[in-house]
Amino acid sequence: MSDVLNFVSVRLDDEKSELIILDQSKLPNEVCFHHYKTKEEIFNAIVTLQVRGAPAIGIAAAYGLYLSVKIHNHVSHTDFFALFKQNKDYLASSRPTAVNLFWALDRMERCLESNKDKSIEEILNFLMIESENIRDEDEAVCLEIGEHTLTLLKAGMGLLTHCNAGTLATAKYGTALAPIYLGQKRGYDFKVFADETRPLLQGARLTAWELNETGIDVTLICDNMASIVMKKGLIDAVLVGCDRVAANGDTANKIGTSNVAILAKHYNIPFYVCAPCSTIDRMTSCGDDIEIELRKGEEITTTWYQKPMAPLNVKTFNPAFDVTDAELITAIITEKGIIYPPYDESIRKLFEKGEQI
Amino acid sequence: MSDVLNFVSVRLDDEKSELIILDQSKLPNEVCFHHYKTKEEIFNAIVTLQVRGAPAIGIAAAYGLYLSVKIHNHVSHTDFFALFKQNKDYLASSRPTAVNLFWALDRMERCLESNKDKSIEEILNFLMIESENIRDEDEAVCLEIGEHTLTLLKAGMGLLTHCNAGTLATAKYGTALAPIYLGQKRGYDFKVFADETRPLLQGARLTAWELNETGIDVTLICDNMASIVMKKGLIDAVLVGCDRVAANGDTANKIGTSNVAILAKHYNIPFYVCAPCSTIDRMTSCGDDIEIELRKGEEITTTWYQKPMAPLNVKTFNPAFDVTDAELITAIITEKGIIYPPYDESIRKLFEKGEQI
Repeated sequence: MSDVLNFVSVRLDDEKSELIILDQSKLPNEVCFHHYKTKEEIFNAIVTLQVRGAPAIGIAAAYGLYLSVKIHNHVSHTDFFALFKQNKDYLASSRPTAVNLFWALDRMERCLESNKDKSIEEILNFLMIESENIRDEDEAVCLEIGEHTLTLLKAGMGLLTHCNAGTLATAKYGTALAPIYLGQKRGYDFKVFADETRPLLQGARLTAWELNETGIDVTLICDNMASIVMKKGLIDAVLVGCDRVAANGDTANKIGTSNVAILAKHYNIPFYVCAPCSTIDRMTSCGDDIEIELRKGEEITTTWYQKPMAPLNVKTFNPAFDVTDAELITAIITEKGIIYPPYDESIRKLFEKGEQI
Repeated sequence: MSDVLNFVSVRLDDEKSELIILDQSKLPNEVCFHHYKTKEEIFNAIVTLQVRGAPAIGIAAAYGLYLSVKIHNHVSHTDFFALFKQNKDYLASSRPTAVNLFWALDRMERCLESNKDKSIEEILNFLMIESENIRDEDEAVCLEIGEHTLTLLKAGMGLLTHCNAGTLATAKYGTALAPIYLGQKRGYDFKVFADETRPLLQGARLTAWELNETGIDVTLICDNMASIVMKKGLIDAVLVGCDRVAANGDTANKIGTSNVAILAKHYNIPFYVCAPCSTIDRMTSCGDDIEIELRKGEEITTTWYQKPMAPLNVKTFNPAFDVTDAELITAIITEKGIIYPPYDESIRKLFEKGEQI
């Protein structure tokens, strides 16, 4: 059994000026690390899902932005700021749905602005520290989310999760999987069911792998088996991560999440969203305003397959995310605590606690 | 464009004493026909889903039972009847959920009993005719179901279907797809969405293929995208086939059907089950009494994949069917007409019409 929790999805090697990325698109068949130096390589790693999961994307983008300007340490301040802005916009265009990407890049920009009067060398040092802070804080946030979520669960419970909101998707521990890892250490003995999560099988390839390697009781099912396991009484709670929570609580997450939420409501099973505050986007009023990434149909018709498993010329529709209406969400668990409906109010109060998000 | 409707999934060549089966497990990459003579080959073709779809399984089993006793045309009546019973039980053990299998075999047995005083040669002739009748009647039944279903639909509608209840699954036209084929000839211009239907992808491989080849507007989606297409207003009705309808209307069909039914209810979209009367099993009082086939986990973890796409040692749960509660079904469409809730009453009345089922 490997200690998957010690695997780091995204790591900065500042000395070598490179980002080391665990290629999640190759798991579980290969554990392969790439060493990237350029913004184009990092952009490509995000687009091709070598690094995926909202928090991990944010971390990779912050590191990537830092590395992309580090090579320009001898230009003028004006040119440096222009390059920073240009590279920030470029990295921000890699994927549209997860807000952590924009949040992390904006945070790097605020760091730049706070230090704009310093030397380029000093600015670069602050940017490096800020990107490391984003990573380190994510690990702490995941632990907090895990602790809060655990208060909602009981030993022996059956838990359903969708996609991968685990250690691979974050700095460490994950969001929705954090309480499962914490619970394991405390003898909670959860029975986890992992939706395989078509088309890219993050549940089968990543969640089932993470949990299985760590010795957690995990059963892999196809997405369309969520109803039968719920009906059989095997599921006491659903735990999912998220890519963006709107101001009213509507939540964008991996395609199929809203299916699971509707099923959970039908079977009276609590549906919990585990969300770092960085995924709550108060500038987006509701789910309809969240841009949903559409990906290539080949992900449905051929990816992973030995031979095409659908007619190659068939039309497809391949949204990478969907929005779960706030009314379907029992609670949202953040590092600052658990919030309940009505979310417009509870989200507002969460951010009024005075801390800088 | 091939005329898929002229493809015959299961055909008897009585002269050569063989059953010709279109291998549905190889579609859409290969169009491959097998010629089977023995009951073991036909049993295996059913188990390995070379022939699948409740009506087609019934047809194959009837033909198979006939062929399995045809070779014993010189034994005594007692031995013939014993062999018939033995082979019937053997073929009946191939799959547990679809009732058409048992219905067709029982019908063959009734034919045997009605003719028990005749010569073996004459009995065999009656059995051959009965098996051909089962096939021919299925085609007529599908047409009737198509006509009745069409009365519930309007031109231009968006239709969602799950698994394959098409021409491949039946003698011709299909059950849930029959109204789509009939509608095409009459300019209905339906927009069909096909759930890919994991793990064995009958929607991607068979439904998308059938409809696409016939020039029908079909869009392939993953099972977990049903919620988003419904939410977007793209679906006006859901049409599915079934493997067994209990006396109270609870319906077993391909795994994931109940997911779709719950989503349809949530979005106020009518959910229609297209069911030949032969799939209505009045001896089964409710869904809990329907045996659900569990298949090997490899169908989830490796089948169709170039490389394992899940940890090979991960636990799986792989039910091939689930039960949709009667309360979720807007109407059941049979060849005798459309029935509505409460189904215990409407099913009873359907069979009181006096016709022999």
